[in-house]
Amino acid sequence: MAATMLTPLRWMDDHLLVLDQRALPAEQRWIRCDTVADVVNVIAGMAVRGAPAIGLAGAYGMAIAALRSEDLADRADMLCGARPTAVHLAWAVQAMRSRCTGKDAQAWVQYAQQLHAEDAELNFAMASHGAALISPGSRVMTHCNTGALATGGWGTALGVIRVAHGAGKIAEVLAGETRPWLQGARLTAWELQQEKIPYRLLADGAMAWAMRQLRPEWVIVGADRIAANGDTANKIGTFSLAVLARSLGVKFMVVAPDATIDRTLESGADIPIEERPGEELTRLGAQPIAPAGAVAWNPVFDVTPAELIDVLVTEHGAISQPDRSQLAAVAPAAG
Amino acid sequence: MAATMLTPLRWMDDHLLVLDQRALPAEQRWIRCDTVADVVNVIAGMAVRGAPAIGLAGAYGMAIAALRSEDLADRADMLCGARPTAVHLAWAVQAMRSRCTGKDAQAWVQYAQQLHAEDAELNFAMASHGAALISPGSRVMTHCNTGALATGGWGTALGVIRVAHGAGKIAEVLAGETRPWLQGARLTAWELQQEKIPYRLLADGAMAWAMRQLRPEWVIVGADRIAANGDTANKIGTFSLAVLARSLGVKFMVVAPDATIDRTLESGADIPIEERPGEELTRLGAQPIAPAGAVAWNPVFDVTPAELIDVLVTEHGAISQPDRSQLAAVAPAAG
Repeated sequence: MAATMLTPLRWMDDHLLVLDQRALPAEQRWIRCDTVADVVNVIAGMAVRGAPAIGLAGAYGMAIAALRSEDLADRADMLCGARPTAVHLAWAVQAMRSRCTGKDAQAWVQYAQQLHAEDAELNFAMASHGAALISPGSRVMTHCNTGALATGGWGTALGVIRVAHGAGKIAEVLAGETRPWLQGARLTAWELQQEKIPYRLLADGAMAWAMRQLRPEWVIVGADRIAANGDTANKIGTFSLAVLARSLGVKFMVVAPDATIDRTLESGADIPIEERPGEELTRLGAQPIAPAGAVAWNPVFDVTPAELIDVLVTEHGAISQPDRSQLAAVAPAAG
Repeated sequence: MAATMLTPLRWMDDHLLVLDQRALPAEQRWIRCDTVADVVNVIAGMAVRGAPAIGLAGAYGMAIAALRSEDLADRADMLCGARPTAVHLAWAVQAMRSRCTGKDAQAWVQYAQQLHAEDAELNFAMASHGAALISPGSRVMTHCNTGALATGGWGTALGVIRVAHGAGKIAEVLAGETRPWLQGARLTAWELQQEKIPYRLLADGAMAWAMRQLRPEWVIVGADRIAANGDTANKIGTFSLAVLARSLGVKFMVVAPDATIDRTLESGADIPIEERPGEELTRLGAQPIAPAGAVAWNPVFDVTPAELIDVLVTEHGAISQPDRSQLAAVAPAAG
């Protein structure tokens, strides 16, 4: 499974190759990391994105430190400091240090590879549970990039689509371009093209018309954070698709590992929504696309109420009409 | 009224100035047209856009032909050929020729100016009817550019917002950027900024979340074509906003001159929907924003069913819950 799958990270005996997502889709460029400083650079410089992928890069960084017999405490601090707010990065670096206490550098390499394989396996489990819900010959719709690029492999929502396509179930994927960052256009389209999965890219404003005219069976999205009652924070635009799907008779699936469920949050109202600079809307790269001084509202996430979610898929299985009692009943995340 | 209002066309004694909308919002550049060939160039080159504005440019082109004592039949053909499918252009050029048969070139100039003033007055009448429906201190939402730039002045949906703002009713405008052409970001934001109307620009995917979090009173849009039953074709993304507005408790207003109602079309199903090249989504100017070979679905318009429209505003007044019988009852367009 792991040998041929699309992954943003490749371990090469004594160094790490990282797919530079900043260069996609124009160019498929791999950055060679021979030192911990190299790994810090790809993380801080955002050549790698997506919480699981960032964490795994950090784990491989610790393996490099062990191979080079460097000061492990110092290198752990360097790696965690590359993205100080990335919880998964700190978790993965700490997991490496807790597990690998001996002098055997190869043990560090093997454990980083094990974490990588475990993430891919967890994604594959989710993908299989989700794919089972898709009818043969279906058209499905997705948003943002929730693919192999963001994880150790397979992806979450895009993992479901990938596995369903492998089972011959997917007639076409309708991918929203996902403004303002265009992850749909830049990354999801690229992943689908790499795997020869038929797709069409759409403006976010065209998704409702596509639901009416092209009749997808499912909208399938990922999640950044899920409250105890099932309310789901995800990339801005997700709430729009959920309301439209319910109104237009399309089913709505959220795919996320159990660790995404934050059982300390009562409801979506408790999820803080980051707002980013308006320049992300008024410029595209260096090119202005709005008048100088234009004011924009740029929330990163929105919150989809649980009642609009038909199915929540985790590695433990599929939960129809997720709510507080069902989320309390499923197993909490294993460490 | 006409002296200070924003208009894309200015007559200067013996020549026409045309605001180059291709240069907006980066630069406010006026193109001087001294000859009919100059006018053909601004029309064919799309420096001017919007059916009414294109028609008025053609009318001024005929005035220039009369002033220069040129062959009027030949110049009429040249002007109409600049955008062969623009019905309003052919209509305006023909109106000039029907009305102005004498040798008095100033009569041609005056009639072009009269058509310009009539278009602005019709827009102002619509704008006033619509503005009357807006509560003081309201936040409103709009899509695409339906402003002075597309017409002889004021605009349609944006005309309503402009007049409501003049009456002190508008707290804030939420403008969708309107992918793929970004008319909201490039043109609507520019018009609002010119007139110091408070606004924020939003990604199209953020409009639903803005409806929930910022509670606008109205979504206000224009129309390209309205069927006899009230079904309304407009810029892609309009149907999405109509479904979301109904679901989230926001009122939905369509603003369009009576001439937009095509009483020969039974319903929206009879309105042909143009699809344009996918490159409009996969490139921004010369810059690729999706992988080479990416496939996109790019319908220009969508159709909003009449039952999602709370009010249709024409120059004759406001029609609540427009339907076939109400559209049959209002006056057909005067010639």
